Amino acid sequence: MQDALRTLSDYWTSKGCLTWQPFNTEVGAGTMNPATVLRVLGPEPWDVAYVEPSVRPDDSRYGENPNRLQTHTQFQVILKPEPGDPQELYLGSLEALGIDLDKHDVRFVEDNWQQPAIGAWGLGWEVWLDGMEITQFTYFQQVGGQNLDPIPVELTYGLERILMAMQGVTHFKDIVYAIAADGRPVTYGEAYGQQEYEMSRYYLDDADVEANRRLYETYVGEATRMVEARLPVPAHGYILKSSHAFNVLDARGAISTTERAKAFATMRRLMRDTAALWIERREELGFPLVREPKATDTPAVDEGELPTTAQTLAFEIGVEELPPHVVGQTVEAVRAALTEKLAATRLEHGEIRVDGTPRRIVATVAEVAPAEPDAKQLRKGPKWAAAFDAEGNPSKALEGFVRGQKATVDQVVKAEIGGNEHAAIEVDVEGRSVRDVGAAIIAQIVKDLRAEKNMRWNDADLSFSRAIRWLVALWGTAVVPVEVSGLRAGRTTYLQRTTAGTRDAGRRADGTPVGFQEVASADELLPLLERGRIQLATDARRASVVEQAEKLATSVGGMIDVEGNAGLIDEITNLVEEPFGVLGTFDERYLELPARILVSVMAKHQRYLPVRTADGALMPYFVTMANGDCDSELVAAGNESVLRARYEDALFFWNQDLAQESVDVFVPGLDKLTFEDRLGSVGQRARRIADVADKLADIVGLEDRTTLHRAGQLAKFDLATNLVVEMSSLAGFVAREYAERKGETHAVADALYEMEQPHTSADAVPTKPEGALLALGDRFDLLAAMFALGAKPTGSSDPFGLRRAALGVVRILREVPDVASITIRDGLEAAVARIAEQGVDVAPDAVAAAEEFTIGRFAQLLRDEGHSAELVNAILPAADTPGRAARLLREITEQRDELPALVEALVRIIRILPADAPTGYDAAKLTEPAEVALREAVESLPKDLAQQDLGVVVATMQPVVAAAHRFFDDILVNAEDLEVRAARQGVLASVLQAAPSGIDWKALDVALA
Amino acid sequence: MQDALRTLSDYWTSKGCLTWQPFNTEVGAGTMNPATVLRVLGPEPWDVAYVEPSVRPDDSRYGENPNRLQTHTQFQVILKPEPGDPQELYLGSLEALGIDLDKHDVRFVEDNWQQPAIGAWGLGWEVWLDGMEITQFTYFQQVGGQNLDPIPVELTYGLERILMAMQGVTHFKDIVYAIAADGRPVTYGEAYGQQEYEMSRYYLDDADVEANRRLYETYVGEATRMVEARLPVPAHGYILKSSHAFNVLDARGAISTTERAKAFATMRRLMRDTAALWIERREELGFPLVREPKATDTPAVDEGELPTTAQTLAFEIGVEELPPHVVGQTVEAVRAALTEKLAATRLEHGEIRVDGTPRRIVATVAEVAPAEPDAKQLRKGPKWAAAFDAEGNPSKALEGFVRGQKATVDQVVKAEIGGNEHAAIEVDVEGRSVRDVGAAIIAQIVKDLRAEKNMRWNDADLSFSRAIRWLVALWGTAVVPVEVSGLRAGRTTYLQRTTAGTRDAGRRADGTPVGFQEVASADELLPLLERGRIQLATDARRASVVEQAEKLATSVGGMIDVEGNAGLIDEITNLVEEPFGVLGTFDERYLELPARILVSVMAKHQRYLPVRTADGALMPYFVTMANGDCDSELVAAGNESVLRARYEDALFFWNQDLAQESVDVFVPGLDKLTFEDRLGSVGQRARRIADVADKLADIVGLEDRTTLHRAGQLAKFDLATNLVVEMSSLAGFVAREYAERKGETHAVADALYEMEQPHTSADAVPTKPEGALLALGDRFDLLAAMFALGAKPTGSSDPFGLRRAALGVVRILREVPDVASITIRDGLEAAVARIAEQGVDVAPDAVAAAEEFTIGRFAQLLRDEGHSAELVNAILPAADTPGRAARLLREITEQRDELPALVEALVRIIRILPADAPTGYDAAKLTEPAEVALREAVESLPKDLAQQDLGVVVATMQPVVAAAHRFFDDILVNAEDLEVRAARQGVLASVLQAAPSGIDWKALDVALA
Repeated sequence: MQDALRTLSDYWTSKGCLTWQPFNTEVGAGTMNPATVLRVLGPEPWDVAYVEPSVRPDDSRYGENPNRLQTHTQFQVILKPEPGDPQELYLGSLEALGIDLDKHDVRFVEDNWQQPAIGAWGLGWEVWLDGMEITQFTYFQQVGGQNLDPIPVELTYGLERILMAMQGVTHFKDIVYAIAADGRPVTYGEAYGQQEYEMSRYYLDDADVEANRRLYETYVGEATRMVEARLPVPAHGYILKSSHAFNVLDARGAISTTERAKAFATMRRLMRDTAALWIERREELGFPLVREPKATDTPAVDEGELPTTAQTLAFEIGVEELPPHVVGQTVEAVRAALTEKLAATRLEHGEIRVDGTPRRIVATVAEVAPAEPDAKQLRKGPKWAAAFDAEGNPSKALEGFVRGQKATVDQVVKAEIGGNEHAAIEVDVEGRSVRDVGAAIIAQIVKDLRAEKNMRWNDADLSFSRAIRWLVALWGTAVVPVEVSGLRAGRTTYLQRTTAGTRDAGRRADGTPVGFQEVASADELLPLLERGRIQLATDARRASVVEQAEKLATSVGGMIDVEGNAGLIDEITNLVEEPFGVLGTFDERYLELPARILVSVMAKHQRYLPVRTADGALMPYFVTMANGDCDSELVAAGNESVLRARYEDALFFWNQDLAQESVDVFVPGLDKLTFEDRLGSVGQRARRIADVADKLADIVGLEDRTTLHRAGQLAKFDLATNLVVEMSSLAGFVAREYAERKGETHAVADALYEMEQPHTSADAVPTKPEGALLALGDRFDLLAAMFALGAKPTGSSDPFGLRRAALGVVRILREVPDVASITIRDGLEAAVARIAEQGVDVAPDAVAAAEEFTIGRFAQLLRDEGHSAELVNAILPAADTPGRAARLLREITEQRDELPALVEALVRIIRILPADAPTGYDAAKLTEPAEVALREAVESLPKDLAQQDLGVVVATMQPVVAAAHRFFDDILVNAEDLEVRAARQGVLASVLQAAPSGIDWKALDVALA
Repeated sequence: MQDALRTLSDYWTSKGCLTWQPFNTEVGAGTMNPATVLRVLGPEPWDVAYVEPSVRPDDSRYGENPNRLQTHTQFQVILKPEPGDPQELYLGSLEALGIDLDKHDVRFVEDNWQQPAIGAWGLGWEVWLDGMEITQFTYFQQVGGQNLDPIPVELTYGLERILMAMQGVTHFKDIVYAIAADGRPVTYGEAYGQQEYEMSRYYLDDADVEANRRLYETYVGEATRMVEARLPVPAHGYILKSSHAFNVLDARGAISTTERAKAFATMRRLMRDTAALWIERREELGFPLVREPKATDTPAVDEGELPTTAQTLAFEIGVEELPPHVVGQTVEAVRAALTEKLAATRLEHGEIRVDGTPRRIVATVAEVAPAEPDAKQLRKGPKWAAAFDAEGNPSKALEGFVRGQKATVDQVVKAEIGGNEHAAIEVDVEGRSVRDVGAAIIAQIVKDLRAEKNMRWNDADLSFSRAIRWLVALWGTAVVPVEVSGLRAGRTTYLQRTTAGTRDAGRRADGTPVGFQEVASADELLPLLERGRIQLATDARRASVVEQAEKLATSVGGMIDVEGNAGLIDEITNLVEEPFGVLGTFDERYLELPARILVSVMAKHQRYLPVRTADGALMPYFVTMANGDCDSELVAAGNESVLRARYEDALFFWNQDLAQESVDVFVPGLDKLTFEDRLGSVGQRARRIADVADKLADIVGLEDRTTLHRAGQLAKFDLATNLVVEMSSLAGFVAREYAERKGETHAVADALYEMEQPHTSADAVPTKPEGALLALGDRFDLLAAMFALGAKPTGSSDPFGLRRAALGVVRILREVPDVASITIRDGLEAAVARIAEQGVDVAPDAVAAAEEFTIGRFAQLLRDEGHSAELVNAILPAADTPGRAARLLREITEQRDELPALVEALVRIIRILPADAPTGYDAAKLTEPAEVALREAVESLPKDLAQQDLGVVVATMQPVVAAAHRFFDDILVNAEDLEVRAARQGVLASVLQAAPSGIDWKALDVALA
């Protein structure tokens, strides 16, 4: 291992990197060393390489887990500005380490790094060696909230993983660390084992929570003071210290969601200030490391004669590995842009084809003419009326125009342009050559490439999902001279990198061309890619993935669920250019874990296709798709060890948790998890949730509370289990699994599962009242708690996830009929009351503010569903009961055509009635026929009409509407006789009362207009 | 620089060292990394090398000082067990770095490392490269209070210094750190300059004292808890953190002496516990790194025929560089042992000569016979009386004896042995060969070698000042087969190491043999050493030092004060084997500093001889003595840059301090220095000292208090100056220099200087009352303060220096007549009262305990001066006034012969008198002649006799003594008539009263017996 470190250090030093030292404070990653996090800021170039033992208290495993260490060894490289070929330089370092790139599967898998705690993000990949993540490869875009320029690239090698793979050992302790003076190997375990055990003990069991809180506060204080003192270096040091103290607290389970949000906000603020300060200070020092740029030669453009016949136009945009979902989008975008832009020219052409892989987008256009035909064009001058004076002499305006066109007055013609008569001059327009047109179109297409997330690299003007590194553009045999920012098109393409890891041209043993290759002509591009085994067409690539996977599954008597894994297969298809299926296996004993856990690890983390029996049971096999020909056995072994480590982890926790007597054992653990300073522990929160759920159960009249009460007792217990601490996305699921295995009823287990639903907007809502009530209790408590403290989300910042909680409330109330009768206000009042009981000082407007917030989210949801804002406004009075509000909205939409008459009548009534008009009336005072008619119509309405479907209401009220219109035509409502007036108002008020509540009729009137 | 680090790393890795990483917490030295401080404990072997950026807040200089950095780069090597040739391995690493050992002066200068804060010590050297300390080289003996076995050797390279020397730059910022990708050098300043500045700002100016105190306390708390949890690794981490927090506080000037002592005690305790725990834990793990020892071959001993004539015996004990003062002591010890041991044999021999250098002790004995002559020897049997029974037959006892001697009864003779007659048998004893005798004697001499401070190394049974590495022992041409522990004598000696740095044999360009050489015969040893230019005889070496130094001084018109520098010259003589004088110079502008500062740096730190003009003024030159031929220019340049850096430092502070308006400016700074938690700041202490001095001035009746009061105001101000913060040994001196330069009177300046005297037991006491009073105030305050808090020194632990304070009090009171009338109690009472005024809760017995302690130290001092314990006891009643007690002691000694009669008389009186006998008597009751005679003798004594010199007392009281004896002979004191009895007692009491007070006569009686 120490040789590997030296090899890397030597390799990168030979590439001009400075050697740096690990930082003298615990850091979670080499990124945090000032040699990265500060030096990437500002204009100064900086190439550096160093070892960084990175401390992650959360990864403590007492040295028992084969792959997890509280301190692991990173090797960190920063190249600033990124040199243009960092992937190739990186692959060179793997070769230096002795990794045979011909045999192994090295892949660049999208991994968009962000560290909100330091206001930093970048795009890049995790580099996989046979499925194992060995390096983080990131183009930094922002650090400390500062946009970076130039863009640095960061490489972070995970040494233990690389060494385990290289030495073929399955536990980090077995890595040979060094050879001692007497020739005996010293293992990693011998060198670091005791430290792993003891520091794990400290981080997981023995660290004093109060002491570490005190440290955290003190560090933050010093960091703040140092920012004020304009000293970014010590400020940064203290940010790191505070971050480590925070991590220790976190590993001890002493950090709640709200504390985390607060701490991150603090660190982000400090880091932003520090970063800004660093740049300022460097500027004061005159940016001492900035150097004169070197002059670059501009290569001559190929300006040879073009053929005169139509030729194929082909271009290839070479990129570094795109994220899978970007591949398809980009193919479509290029296709659309090319089609449209070509259409806007006069260039004749044949079929347009665009296809792509993660590393290239290739377009061909058949039969493209050498040039646009020549054409005539009218140039618009002054209006004809203003072109000549009374004597027919050219006006000043015309003369000016003619002069500007370098023409003479006798060339002027009359032309109708834009509906007016203008003086005009007809000019000949020469058709542009395919070279010019093609170059302009392709340049624009490249320049316009965009994804949802875009990055910058060493190219001044481009911005895309990943760096664009080369352009091929040919029309026939000629290069189309595309120039876009620093890129120039040529005829060199880059095939698979599998041989040398560099851009060398070459061939595999079987003759497949690899590396860079010259393309003779546009027609040669696709055949060359094919010879290079690059499956350009997505459909074909996908078919190959499926075919290979099925074949491999069949070989062990299993099958692949192609339909169920459609999304995953799409993803895999766009992870490779040359799919090469490899079958792997795992130990059957892991099958004792629930399939959801196993599959989630396979699919989500590793992009493996699970192999199942015909009846759907998981088999201990998986298929992974390497990128190109490789040594299957070697690659399978690598992937298997990755999966083993992950399963080992999960199984370890699973067994550890299930060794408990009952799930009650975990409940006290919740009291040790702080939820929020003022709101106490997660345990207290869980009890509040149970109590609120119970209150809400009163409202819906739930009679048998056995399940609700038991599930309430156990609410959130799984947050204290090891498995959920480790894989937090399994919260709820684990609760159900454990509950069932530890003797709880199915109903209780389900309630514990459902109370966490919906996780996301796509997620299902609870199906049973108990789950729904607890889920509501959970979300009402969160909303009430935060508004009780006066913490409300602002702008883009919603650290406590209140928006999600509000949407959850709305969805449950709307979609779960069992609880539909609960209003938002009911829930919030119960929750606030329960919080106040706990002694929390509740903000006076808490309920109102939380209600307004929740209804605001509901309104937004409805608008997002396509309802107009006006329509949504119309049902806001009912929004406190979201199910009803949604139903009204649907009914209004259905009755859109029938409604206006009713609405018009009601709005007229509303306008004329005083705000407090009573509904009673003295029938005797209503004597005019229109009065009588209205009264009779109203009185004949069924009593429960307002509860009916809106369609029924509209139909039923039709006579009333007619009578009302007549009433308004014939009768003066505000009669001088006050008794008459009261009766008239009364009958009108009765009409209003008969109409359904929950609708703002005036708003509806606007909406329907 | 990064190449140098890689070179060292590669070099040591090639020697079997593990590569380690810097620690992820600020450490003051590579030693503190667990790879050293924990791994050196216990039996496991451990070879490791690593870089350690070492943080010393105190060394912060804003990056401005050319040689001081708050973070400097150490390269650390641990070889455990020490490999037997660590010096040679080390020199190999310097060669690997490209340092030409032929041209440079590399020396191993005694440096006994100890770090009480971690209970660690070791013996070794600082390695000098041309006078610059570039490496610490230590044989660790104890760490964490644990004796180490095996003994590790630690090498700590100071990279910046080595690189500055190698690159010939004069400021660390100019070191070329690396070459960037574009071929441009990146300097150390560019890489680390900003960090140096900002971290200096933090450590010196901006660190929050309260925050760092909080950190310190928290770290100590966690360390303590981790020791309790039996986790040495995290415990150690927290010890380091607490140590760093302490260092930050120290750099901010917020640590008092007492706090320092307390903190060190805490850290020492924690480190001891942690070290013990580490060993326990490793033992529990089965000491996993322990390996089977390799079998070693025992070489055959040379058993050839010996010549039959007398030959020279010569032996050489080869050692690693001894401390200078040990060389002479060892030569003497070997000479004495050899002489004595030879005398105890029957081996005939001629003259014995022993001489030595730091690297060898060589003895020759002329004309040593090949063997002892044969001889007869009597073997003692049972007593003659018990040898035969009545019949004359041999007794059982005799038979047993004879059988044991393998003899027969007829060989039995009668012999007087030890004054008794015994049966005996005479046997022939063969004379032992010179080989056996010589081997035994030399082995014993080697085994018995000792210095005050001894160390262990990889040899199981030996212990000496430094490692003994080889033995030459020859009698004529034959090897004397000395075997002592792992060492065997041979005929190989090792001359100067200057060529290859290894043990290779070789020759310098001028033919001088170097490296290892075979010695043909005993007579060849001295000539060989001479050919190797080793000046074995100390006198000759010293003469060479003086001659070269004087010649070099003369060459620039100066001279060397040979007499004034006698001690330094002795030291230099024993620092080298082959003195080679080199003249260096320094910038004249440093001469503006006081000569004491300049000379102290030259002599104390660098062992340079200052060059002076004929009238004694310093010249900007110095002479250093290299060890052997070297490139004078190169070596001079190196030494000059070292001196420049030191002077630069001093001058910087000097000017900074003197830029202040007046010395008053510093006084408020004392309030920022904490003296002790409960006792407040140094400023408060200074004010207490002034007040106590003022009180004591009342006692001695000092009238003009102008000087005392002004000096009191300024007391200790220099502790707040930069220069004293840096060079604390200059406290007092700097006060005087600054005071004079800033307009204070000479008297005030002197008082400030004298108040710090005596520093050491050899130091002078104040000469003027003001200085003496303030010095007393200082020491009384310290004693009173500590006893007020109940903190009293125990055993070897005296962290507050109370013993020194007590001795200071005693010496001042005894030696300064102006203040001699002050008693210890006076001073302590005044000091305690002043402390109580400040609101400190004073222990009730504070004054008594402090007085007892001080008098105890006084008594010890007197005993150390050679007075018997009994005699010292006799004057203890006067000890509260030390001057008087000492005078009494002197007078008693002088009157030793005359005193007994008086003492006898007085003791008889004391014995017979009741404790409370009054001195008055009714003369009328004294009628017997003996009574009358005594009464008359007493009454004729002069009134002030007790104040007189003891000689006068003895002489004057002679008649009284005679009368008293007669009185006792004739008179029954306790007469039955009570009035008579009272009168008789009264007259005896008057005799007693007339004798001098302050003497315990009964004790004196014992002492004189």
